[in-house]
Amino acid sequence: MADPKDISPCKNEDLFLKCRSTLITGVLLPDKTRSDIWYDETGTIRTCGPDIARNHRNEADIILDGSGFLAMPGLINTHTHAAMTLLRGYADDMHLQQWLSEKIWPLEAHLTGEHVYWGTKLACLEMIRSGTIAFNDMYFYMKDAARAVQESGIRAVLSHGIITFGDEAKMEAELKATEDLVHHVRSLNTSLITSAIAPHAPYTVPPQHLEVCADYSQKEKIIIHTHLAETKQEVDDCQKSYGMTPAALLDKTGCLTERTVAAHGCWLSEDDCRLLAERRVSVAHNPVSNMKLATGRAMPYHWLKDQGVNVCLGTDGCSSNNNLDMLEEMKTAALCQKFFWNSDTLLPAAEALSMGTSWGAKALGYQGGVIQEGMPADIVLISLSHPSMVPLHNPVSNIAYSAEGSVVDTVICQGKILMYNRYIPDEEKIIAGARESADDLLNRAGIMA
Amino acid sequence: MADPKDISPCKNEDLFLKCRSTLITGVLLPDKTRSDIWYDETGTIRTCGPDIARNHRNEADIILDGSGFLAMPGLINTHTHAAMTLLRGYADDMHLQQWLSEKIWPLEAHLTGEHVYWGTKLACLEMIRSGTIAFNDMYFYMKDAARAVQESGIRAVLSHGIITFGDEAKMEAELKATEDLVHHVRSLNTSLITSAIAPHAPYTVPPQHLEVCADYSQKEKIIIHTHLAETKQEVDDCQKSYGMTPAALLDKTGCLTERTVAAHGCWLSEDDCRLLAERRVSVAHNPVSNMKLATGRAMPYHWLKDQGVNVCLGTDGCSSNNNLDMLEEMKTAALCQKFFWNSDTLLPAAEALSMGTSWGAKALGYQGGVIQEGMPADIVLISLSHPSMVPLHNPVSNIAYSAEGSVVDTVICQGKILMYNRYIPDEEKIIAGARESADDLLNRAGIMA
Repeated sequence: MADPKDISPCKNEDLFLKCRSTLITGVLLPDKTRSDIWYDETGTIRTCGPDIARNHRNEADIILDGSGFLAMPGLINTHTHAAMTLLRGYADDMHLQQWLSEKIWPLEAHLTGEHVYWGTKLACLEMIRSGTIAFNDMYFYMKDAARAVQESGIRAVLSHGIITFGDEAKMEAELKATEDLVHHVRSLNTSLITSAIAPHAPYTVPPQHLEVCADYSQKEKIIIHTHLAETKQEVDDCQKSYGMTPAALLDKTGCLTERTVAAHGCWLSEDDCRLLAERRVSVAHNPVSNMKLATGRAMPYHWLKDQGVNVCLGTDGCSSNNNLDMLEEMKTAALCQKFFWNSDTLLPAAEALSMGTSWGAKALGYQGGVIQEGMPADIVLISLSHPSMVPLHNPVSNIAYSAEGSVVDTVICQGKILMYNRYIPDEEKIIAGARESADDLLNRAGIMA
Repeated sequence: MADPKDISPCKNEDLFLKCRSTLITGVLLPDKTRSDIWYDETGTIRTCGPDIARNHRNEADIILDGSGFLAMPGLINTHTHAAMTLLRGYADDMHLQQWLSEKIWPLEAHLTGEHVYWGTKLACLEMIRSGTIAFNDMYFYMKDAARAVQESGIRAVLSHGIITFGDEAKMEAELKATEDLVHHVRSLNTSLITSAIAPHAPYTVPPQHLEVCADYSQKEKIIIHTHLAETKQEVDDCQKSYGMTPAALLDKTGCLTERTVAAHGCWLSEDDCRLLAERRVSVAHNPVSNMKLATGRAMPYHWLKDQGVNVCLGTDGCSSNNNLDMLEEMKTAALCQKFFWNSDTLLPAAEALSMGTSWGAKALGYQGGVIQEGMPADIVLISLSHPSMVPLHNPVSNIAYSAEGSVVDTVICQGKILMYNRYIPDEEKIIAGARESADDLLNRAGIMA
């Protein structure tokens, strides 16, 4: 690169290599003010405001012209199973149990670490393309997932999904896998990736094993990532077996903490919501997956909000979504809530955006999801010349209700540029590798592609 | 253009000027077969199948390499108010009546033909970008809309929205506006644009005026475009005033015909569905708008399907959606139906795709929405290297559930290339004109932008 400040035409791989002090000039913020943003080589926003460019032009290694763009915080996906991208479209429109037992589980039985690596590579690529810079993942072969995440440059909280059905040997093995992951992630020595413990759900992990998970989370100070009250069946069964709701059971076993991210919550009661608020749990709403799988009820956002629970957003895995598009998820959340709870004013655009950004960062245990001094430079530049962003009466409404993936032009995570002008350096290689890996998975399962 | 067959790198405006005999080679079809498609200079598909390229290579003026793409029929939006793009994001998250009376109507009172022209230009641009090649429109200043549509190159059925509340002078004026539009559209002498008569709804147009509309439709052999059973209030009021459902009232006044497109249908009864089937009416489902406005019930797709009603899809206007993205609408239709009617198998991907294509063409009264010999060359090329299309276990599932707008690479309507490699010739001019027009509308209404 002759002049480091000359980054266009920009397919210069050098731009993507590391975080450098960067000045974004004259960009629009969601509140409709125009601003400059300067972040340093640690990826921290140093200052943000109108007319700061003058003072920092010489300190910046890179200058990005933000004049045609809106800068928003990078999106945060607080519940997914990233590697399930490889199963995208493999089976749809079936009854849940039949879908799991005849399609998903038989294929997953043939998964290897290599599949998880490529599935997670594809997931990270798709997330970057649609403006997501952090995700909360639960799956298997998580060291392979960690490798993929680290290569991608985005943030993740990684966890090995624990399912024991009461089997002690299984619990031992699952805990061992979690410990391995926790140590492995620490050895990576990056602030972008952390680990969690993931008891899959109260109906797959009995109380004595939930307690083990709670203790481990407490000891290691890591997130508990779990599913909660996704279906009515689950709540009814829990009441029958334990005489309490799944939320109460999680609480009794110590699993409801300020480090807990509970996904779904479709069938939470008002009492459950009060309890989750008291314990400072975060709840990840997954409206697309819930609607596709016909859970029968939407997460009670109004009760959670009234109680002050931190509510965030997730896409769930690609086999029940079938993408990882958080722009779509924000819109669907607002639609799903208004429709199911019959209230045209519920979950307005600004709250949908907070769910997808700052409330998500809070759930994942870091300060972020807002563009201001001292925050990580997790910044997405949205093209204002895409028809779905025109006119611009209300930028927040356009982001939440109108924008589609192709508005995302540039994605920056902790100061590192991951996509610029819609170009991502390794995209072709990742697409080819993921395709090959999906074919290999079908082959191993004896299915003709 | 030196060699007419060399169209890449392709920002050659000449490519977009007119329909020429075109061969698309080696493209994937939704059924996962690989095919060549040849259409002639009238924009009609002449042949389609594997290995036909050899025989038609010399007859084609243009050859498009389809090897990285999936060819699907262009999408068809069967209910919208296109020019309302100018109101995108102007007001959201309010109670319906307050939203209409305090926000939408006061702004619409200042609309001119020039606003409708630019709003419709923006709408057509957005539709082309997201793979839509036909729409069914109801609004005002429709001659201005016609000018915008004709410049865009896509198909439209245009109608002047008739609201009389029983006022005879108003009815006379509205009918006059419709007659003017019908004659004007015929004078354009294009097969792509037709006109319709649009009694807004049974609650805004009383029976005697509905009868006038039915007679006019019958006389001119044009479509009747109306709203039907969108809210419970409307159905309750109709029962109170006329002792019958809105569908029965439309039938009594002659408005239920095989040329009728009725939008919404959220609160249709089983008897209504039977009646609509008997009259061969098409029903346009608008799930995004219905959910955003919290209509309280989803169109009963299962009843309509069981009765054999032709069901299609619409985005509604941008003030209640807030975009015109039919890919999103197909997905939301499947989600909304499964969720509301509590059935994970209802409205599978293939039916969502039919609703967005061939069933839409049927509703709008023309043969189309499928890629086969004798059909219009309304073809959308979807990039297979976008992460949301990888892997490709099931192309139909990926289109309906996973694809987002940026997968749309090339759009062809009646053989004319409207977008190629994501490039649309007049895009910048249209964006600038629409922005200016939206500002002008606010200024006229005395609102600071």
